[in-house]
Order: sequence, then C-alpha cells, then structure tokens
Amino acid sequence: MATNPGLSQTELHDAWPLLSREDQVAGFRLLSREESEQLFDTLDAREQCELILALPPGQRRSWMRLLAPDDAADVVQGAENPEERAALLDLLDEPTRKEVLALLAYAEDEAGGLMSPRFARLRPDMTVDAAISYLRRQREGQVETIYYAYVLDGQQHLLGVVSLRDLVTASPAKHVSEVMETDVISAQEGMDQEILSHLFADHDLAAIPVVDETGRMKGIVTVDDIVDVVREEATEDMHKIGGAEALDAPYPEVGLGGMLRKRAGWLSLLVLLEFLSVLAMRGYQHSLAKVLVLTIFVPLIISCGGNSGSQASTLIVRAMALNEVRLRDWWHVIRRELAVGLSLGIILGTIGMLTAVAFLSLFAPAEIRGHHFSIAVTVGLSIVGVALWGTMAGSMLPFVLRSLGFDPASASGPLVATLVDASGLVIYLTIATLILRGTLL
Amino acid sequence: MATNPGLSQTELHDAWPLLSREDQVAGFRLLSREESEQLFDTLDAREQCELILALPPGQRRSWMRLLAPDDAADVVQGAENPEERAALLDLLDEPTRKEVLALLAYAEDEAGGLMSPRFARLRPDMTVDAAISYLRRQREGQVETIYYAYVLDGQQHLLGVVSLRDLVTASPAKHVSEVMETDVISAQEGMDQEILSHLFADHDLAAIPVVDETGRMKGIVTVDDIVDVVREEATEDMHKIGGAEALDAPYPEVGLGGMLRKRAGWLSLLVLLEFLSVLAMRGYQHSLAKVLVLTIFVPLIISCGGNSGSQASTLIVRAMALNEVRLRDWWHVIRRELAVGLSLGIILGTIGMLTAVAFLSLFAPAEIRGHHFSIAVTVGLSIVGVALWGTMAGSMLPFVLRSLGFDPASASGPLVATLVDASGLVIYLTIATLILRGTLL
Repeated sequence: MATNPGLSQTELHDAWPLLSREDQVAGFRLLSREESEQLFDTLDAREQCELILALPPGQRRSWMRLLAPDDAADVVQGAENPEERAALLDLLDEPTRKEVLALLAYAEDEAGGLMSPRFARLRPDMTVDAAISYLRRQREGQVETIYYAYVLDGQQHLLGVVSLRDLVTASPAKHVSEVMETDVISAQEGMDQEILSHLFADHDLAAIPVVDETGRMKGIVTVDDIVDVVREEATEDMHKIGGAEALDAPYPEVGLGGMLRKRAGWLSLLVLLEFLSVLAMRGYQHSLAKVLVLTIFVPLIISCGGNSGSQASTLIVRAMALNEVRLRDWWHVIRRELAVGLSLGIILGTIGMLTAVAFLSLFAPAEIRGHHFSIAVTVGLSIVGVALWGTMAGSMLPFVLRSLGFDPASASGPLVATLVDASGLVIYLTIATLILRGTLL
Repeated sequence: MATNPGLSQTELHDAWPLLSREDQVAGFRLLSREESEQLFDTLDAREQCELILALPPGQRRSWMRLLAPDDAADVVQGAENPEERAALLDLLDEPTRKEVLALLAYAEDEAGGLMSPRFARLRPDMTVDAAISYLRRQREGQVETIYYAYVLDGQQHLLGVVSLRDLVTASPAKHVSEVMETDVISAQEGMDQEILSHLFADHDLAAIPVVDETGRMKGIVTVDDIVDVVREEATEDMHKIGGAEALDAPYPEVGLGGMLRKRAGWLSLLVLLEFLSVLAMRGYQHSLAKVLVLTIFVPLIISCGGNSGSQASTLIVRAMALNEVRLRDWWHVIRRELAVGLSLGIILGTIGMLTAVAFLSLFAPAEIRGHHFSIAVTVGLSIVGVALWGTMAGSMLPFVLRSLGFDPASASGPLVATLVDASGLVIYLTIATLILRGTLL
C-alpha cells in the first residue's frame, strides 16, 4: 500500500497492522503533533517500540518521554535485542530511567510488572486540607491517579488508603489518619496477574497497591491495566486450547517463522501420539478384514469421542481460569461429567444408531445383508462408550495437568481428541467383537 | 456440608459455589452485618439474586436497596421467572425502581445495559468553585463516580466532560465551560459491549458516557464493568470454540438439564455431519478391501487434518474478536495460512512418513512386504495434503461465518475437525490410488 498523505489519524489507526514499517512511519510523520500523540496512545507497547525505533534518532526522545514509567518499561520489554533496549532506556531522563529499570526486574505477568511506581503518597499526620492541596499540586504524569492516595509511614509501610472523594467530603481540619481506610486490599509484588485480576473483580476496586514482603509500598496497579490482563490471559488460554502455543503477539504481526515455532510443536507431538491409534487399528486387523464394513464407521466413532472430549476439556479449562472450579473440586466435576457424558452418549448413540440403520439399508455391501441391525447397535453402543469416555478424559485431563504443575489450558481440544482416538477404537472394536461374535466375526 | 457456625466471611466466599442454598443462607446469616455486606459485594448478580430470594421476606429489602441501579437491574435479570422479577422490583424505593425499569429495557450485552444512570451532571455556566462544592455534596451511591462530571445543556445534550482533577487544579473563578474537554468519546445506547470494550482499550478511559441518537446523555459505563465484559465475552467465545453453546453461568451452577441443552446440540449435529466421512469410506470400500493396511492409517490422517484445522480456526476466531483481523483482511490471512499450512504439512508429513516406515517394518502384515516405502510415502503426502487443507478450511470458516452474519466463534475446533474429516479421507484415498495403482491396487 502506498503512502497516502490524506490518511487521517483514525484511518491510519485502522490500517496500522497492515502497513509496512516505512508506510507506518511516513503516515505517522504526516500527522499533526496532536493527532500523532493520539495515534501513539492507541498503539500497544510492541507497536510503540517498533515505531520509536523506526523514527529518525533525533525524534525518538520526545515519544519515549511521553510514556509513564510502567508503559515505558513495557516498550523497552517489546524490543527484540539488548542493544535496542539500551538505546530506548538512554532516551529517558535519569530519574525515570531508574524507575523503569526497577520495573524491568519484575516479570511482565506479575503485579510488580504491571504497577506504576508513581502514586500519590500522604503522611498520616497531615490535615485533610493539606492533603487536598498537596494532591492538587501533582501535575499530570507525576502520579498515575490523584483519586486514591496512599498513607505511608517513614519506612514506606502502607498504613491506609484515602480517596479524593473521602478527602473533599471530610472536614478540612481532621487528620488523614482519621479519614483513611486501614483495611486495605493489597497485592504482593510477585502475585500472578491472573490472581490479581480476580482480586479486582471480587472487590470492585479501581486501584490496588503493591507491597513487598515487609509491607513497604512499591506502586499501584489500576483497573484499566487489568482489562488488558484479562484479555491477554484469555487469548493465551484460547491459543493453547486450539492446540498452539500462545502467540504472544497480534496475529498479523507474527511472521511465518514465528507462526511455525508456535504451531508446529504441538501438532508434531500429536502426529506421534496418533500412532497409538494406528497400533490399535493394527491390533484388530483380523476382525476388520473379516467384517470390512466396520472400518466404514471408524471416523464416525473416533470423532464422537474427540468432539465430546474437546468440549468437556474446554469448559473445565475455562472454569478453572475463572476460579469457578478448583483442584479440590475434581470429585464434584467427575460426578457431574459422568452424568453429562452418559446422557450425551445416549443422545448421540441413538442418533448414530438410527442414521446407521438408514445408511446401511441404502449403501451396505451385499455380504452383510441380515446383519444391519446388529451393526447399527454396535455403532450406537460404541458411540455411548466413546462419548462417555471422551467426556471423562477431557474433563479430568485439566485436573491432572494442574496437579502436576502444568497449565491446564494445555489440555487442548486437539490433544484430548488425539488421546481419546486410540481408546475409542479399542472400545468400538471390543463392542463389535462382543456383539458380532458367532455371526459375522 | 453441614452448616459451620465458625465459617469466616472469606471461607464462606470460597466455599460458596459448593454449598447448598440452605447452607449458604445459614452461613450468611451467621455473619456480622459488616462481614455479610462484604460477602454480598463479592457475589455476582445471579448469586445475589438467589441469595436475596432465599432470605426470609422481611430481610430482603435492605439487601436489594444496597445495590446501585445498574447492579439491581442485573440482579432482577438473574431471576428465573416474572413473579420473582416483580417481587425483587417491589423491594426497591420508587425512584430507583423507575431507573431500574429503564435499564431493563436494554439488552444485557449493550452499552445501555451496562451503564449506570447515576452520573455527576454540571452546567456549563457554573464556576469551578461551585462545581467542586456541588460534587462534594454528592453522597456515596448517589452518583457512580465524582471523578468525572458531565456537562449538559437544558435538554440533557452532552457538551463536555471535566475530571475532578481538572477542577481542583483550575482557578476557582473560571467557568466549567472553560475547563471542560469538548472532544468527548461517547457510546450509543445500543453499542455492543464488545465494541465498547475496544473503545475503552483504545483510548485508556476510566468512564465513557452513553448517549441516545439525539446526543442526550443517558448514563456512564465505568472501566471496572468492562473487566467483567472482557471476561464474559472471552468465556462465551471459548465455550463456542470448544463446541458447546455459551453456558452463560459459572460451570458449577449449571444443572444437568442445562448442561445437556448447551452441549448436546452441536455434538448431535456433528454426528450427522460425520456421516459424510462414513460415505467417503464407503466410496473407497473396494480399494480398502484390496489393501487393508490403508485402513490402519485412517485415524492418523484425519486427525492431522482436524488438529491443524482446529488450531487455525481458534487463532483466527480470537484475532477477529480482538479486532486484529477484520473481514476485509481475508486475503492477507489466506496467503499467510497457505504458507503456514504447507510448511506444517511438510513438517508433519515428514514425521508421519518416517514413523510409518518404522511402524511398517515392525508391524506390517506379510502381504505388503516390499511396499513399505510406497505406503509410507502415501501416508506422508496425504498428511501434507490434509494439514494444508485443514489449515485453509479452519482459517477461512470464521470469515465465511462472519460474512454470513454468524458468530465466527461457532467455527469451533470440533466443527472444523468434523468438516475436514470427510475431505481428508478423499485426499488420502485419492493419493493412495495414484501411488499404489498397478502395484497393490
């Protein structure tokens, strides 16, 4: 796409992921300063990083300095190599660089990595009046929000929190210690962002202070950062449920090499695992040779197991991520899924049996005339068995993975389907042997 | 679990989903008023509704009146039948009931259904000083937030927005019209909540005003409501990707009947669709009878197609939900997935071929001695074909669904896998015919 000097800020924002780096920079530089700042704000950290590095060196500094320290840390983390990171850090003023370096010590997905170190601090012995005028003096950018102020002692221990609302409605001569809330919900630096997001949800909070293990306050996380966290965590889980590794970047930004690295691993493992069903098929080769019509239904039977398994595992993985189901609830889940799996099996088995009767009366080879019904019953009962087994396996695998310390979302639909294939075949061919022995087999 | 008089508020919160209604009520009533209010706040709307209805009639009113109108509307919506809804509405005071009834006219998943009608209103000709003291007088509950105030004309048209921060830092004698921001990002009443959540993300806003088509302001949506929206939308999409309908309730709260209604539909359809692959197997029955060893690899081949298809569709469905990929990007996606699918096919095909050679040399029946290599090549090439085809079909189905007006998330892993099964068999058995014609076939 050629650079279009008429592209507005909104058009450029919409077209951004599809433009080449050169066209992005060219379009960006054609905007007015105000428009380009608005566009810059809508980009995510990785895009901001790429854009800054693509700008001429003389223009980089002002963009990097627009960012609050937590956002600047994200941008630095978005750089691909240490040289670029160092170059970005060098663009910052000295105090901000120190703050950013401190933030970079935290993992991206823990409370410390999300927090801003710029929060409004008050002393307990200040008057309400003094606190308000102190907060009024905080300039934009100096603190993340003035709506919540944190009351610290001389050693930076968190004593309480007070909202601007509480301050403006309190009598001006009171002390901050008299109006502050001391029962503060706070997060440890290393708290996982997913748990942190549940803390926000459970308590309907706008900001949560982050403290170290001695209770010293290090920063605040605000609810707008949590929106991104919830979205990211869901994306990661979905990518895993789909049988890939988390892409960790927007789809259009991942190159062919990156895609293959994230997508080929699981699929390759699954090809190898699927040889279990090749083995199962080989084991029943003699029965299949005798009653060839049984092979016709193999894709149907194993797909029923795979589909019910994918469904069950996805529901459980999501329920675990939402904290609706915990490890110790496995017994409740197993009883529930036993009932669901059996019911689904009976429904699907009935549909399968009836359709098989119709199919056989239309398309059956001559040699099994007179055995249509027993074959259809075999198909129906096998579907009951594999749907029940698929549901149980799919719902329990996330528990097994989590109890072993793995991510339950790795119990992807494709993994469950593949694992259930071989056992589904054994169920099918065992039932066939039992029903058809003495007649066809 | 028997009622335990020693259960603390946190313990009760953790155990909540597992307790019977009676035990929930008994535990709840044993808490102090303060603790029970804290617990009540952490429950979601459906749980609050069930709890209120389970309390003795005399105690219901005070709990319903604790709620802000938008939360009260959610609780009323959580009731199962019209009588319960009417009973809950009757617990409210008259002005709140009117507000709640107005909110109930909106769908739950649109901006109007999320907004609170209680926002802080200012007139443009007020002085900053008057505005601050007006905001100070707003009691807790009277408005959702005093940190953002909306400037309206006499007909309730939205003229601008001003933050408490802007007010406290402005000179007190100025007029509100001089300090307000007039370039306001607002949402239409009927805007879908998913689009609204992107608006919050793109502009990093704490609150967005909701207006009707004539620009009259109806309420505000705050970012903490958006956290729930993002979580809910992701949950719905995941349930669909797993091949179920969205449960629309936490897993432990859905009874057996509800589970079956949400889960049996898609699976039943898929059983019927899978008869396409039964037909495909029947069509090649003569070839399979001649070279029975070909049947052994059927589960392997179709699973490769299903797995690559599930993976591709999940990635595209999520990218669409995040607005990273739009309908008009289909051409970019098709080119990308063509390259990815072919590369994956070559990787998986090579693994499959090598493993098939090893497998055949260990387990092959005597009659195909001397043909191991050509069979392994057949398997390998078929995997290339089905992986490529699965990837293409999986990535394009979400586009087809969306362009027809359906939810792209309905392109679930199980649906894609089932659709790809029959065509995968045709690919496999066509390649087998081409390679083995004149030797085994």
